[in-house]
Amino acid sequence: MRRIASRGVYDRAAVYAILDEALVCHVGIVTDDQPYVIPMLHARIEDELYIHGSPGSRLIQQAAAGSPACLTATLLDGLVLARSAFHHSLNYRSVVVLARGREIRDRDEKWTIMERLVERVVPGRWAHIRQPNEKEFNGTTLVAFPLDECSAKVRTGPPKDDDEDYELPIWAGVIPLALRPGLPQPDTRLPHDVPPPSHVANYRR
Amino acid sequence: MRRIASRGVYDRAAVYAILDEALVCHVGIVTDDQPYVIPMLHARIEDELYIHGSPGSRLIQQAAAGSPACLTATLLDGLVLARSAFHHSLNYRSVVVLARGREIRDRDEKWTIMERLVERVVPGRWAHIRQPNEKEFNGTTLVAFPLDECSAKVRTGPPKDDDEDYELPIWAGVIPLALRPGLPQPDTRLPHDVPPPSHVANYRR
Repeated sequence: MRRIASRGVYDRAAVYAILDEALVCHVGIVTDDQPYVIPMLHARIEDELYIHGSPGSRLIQQAAAGSPACLTATLLDGLVLARSAFHHSLNYRSVVVLARGREIRDRDEKWTIMERLVERVVPGRWAHIRQPNEKEFNGTTLVAFPLDECSAKVRTGPPKDDDEDYELPIWAGVIPLALRPGLPQPDTRLPHDVPPPSHVANYRR
Repeated sequence: MRRIASRGVYDRAAVYAILDEALVCHVGIVTDDQPYVIPMLHARIEDELYIHGSPGSRLIQQAAAGSPACLTATLLDGLVLARSAFHHSLNYRSVVVLARGREIRDRDEKWTIMERLVERVVPGRWAHIRQPNEKEFNGTTLVAFPLDECSAKVRTGPPKDDDEDYELPIWAGVIPLALRPGLPQPDTRLPHDVPPPSHVANYRR
């Protein structure tokens, strides 16, 4: 993924669409000059991004304490096969967010974000499940990041080869990629009379 | 993705298999206490991991100069739908590598790694394409990271609910996820008599 200015995307709606489609982001935090990058489920509501974790997680503690963070979400869309090795690339959409986190302590706000963390993965799921009890609620730390400093990079379309290479008899094009769901696998401990609800049977990405 | 010690994997072959299957890793680098996390194509040969980029890229420059880095590769395998909100999770495999990079300057070594960067994405491609010329060769910076300090985390299998929740009439299970290739899309500037070679027509993940 090369550094090409024209791949920058600065439209807020485009940035948010990428964040919403990506299931996880990679959260970077620094401890004693060493960066740590960890994949985490995220959720967005309006102009804030949320992650959650155990109160015992060091990354969550640092994020909640406002340590500088970087949250990057990436969608892979295709393998770009050019005529030259040099112009091989990937089609992708990625968003980089630079922000300092704050812990969400307000009960109502925390509940709303917990709901979003489930609903944004499988819409319709929240109303169907056993919701958090007091112990689970208190045992989850939520961290909010403002979406002030964020940008997207997108590569799309066919390979771009050097002019003289277009005459070479080399196949070029794109092999598309997408994260696809398979058939739902019921838990073996599920009673036989519990059919998959529509939010499972009709799950699409 | 919760902090559960039992999810740690310390087997080197398992770590390498995850690195090899993931198309990109997320590279974390620190500048003035601010972490930056950028998706990059990587390749592995034996006990080293490689990334490449433009000599003008700040991240590549810092990585080549030996700044502490973290490279994290993540594969998403499924949505874990539990009976309780709290036990919802993702099935995933991820590897975290902590290392300092060094620039590859030896010509033969650099050539071998360039070949691997193409071959590890689409095996069979390298012999088929126009290989790097002097300008492209010199215009690519390669950075090597030793795979000394690396670990994997894996979650697999069905949801793990609280004992009393198994009696609830709530559908639970896993929706598998996988990054799947679609049909190859030939470049519109390709002559009609260039059929897709077998490494394209038979591409699998």
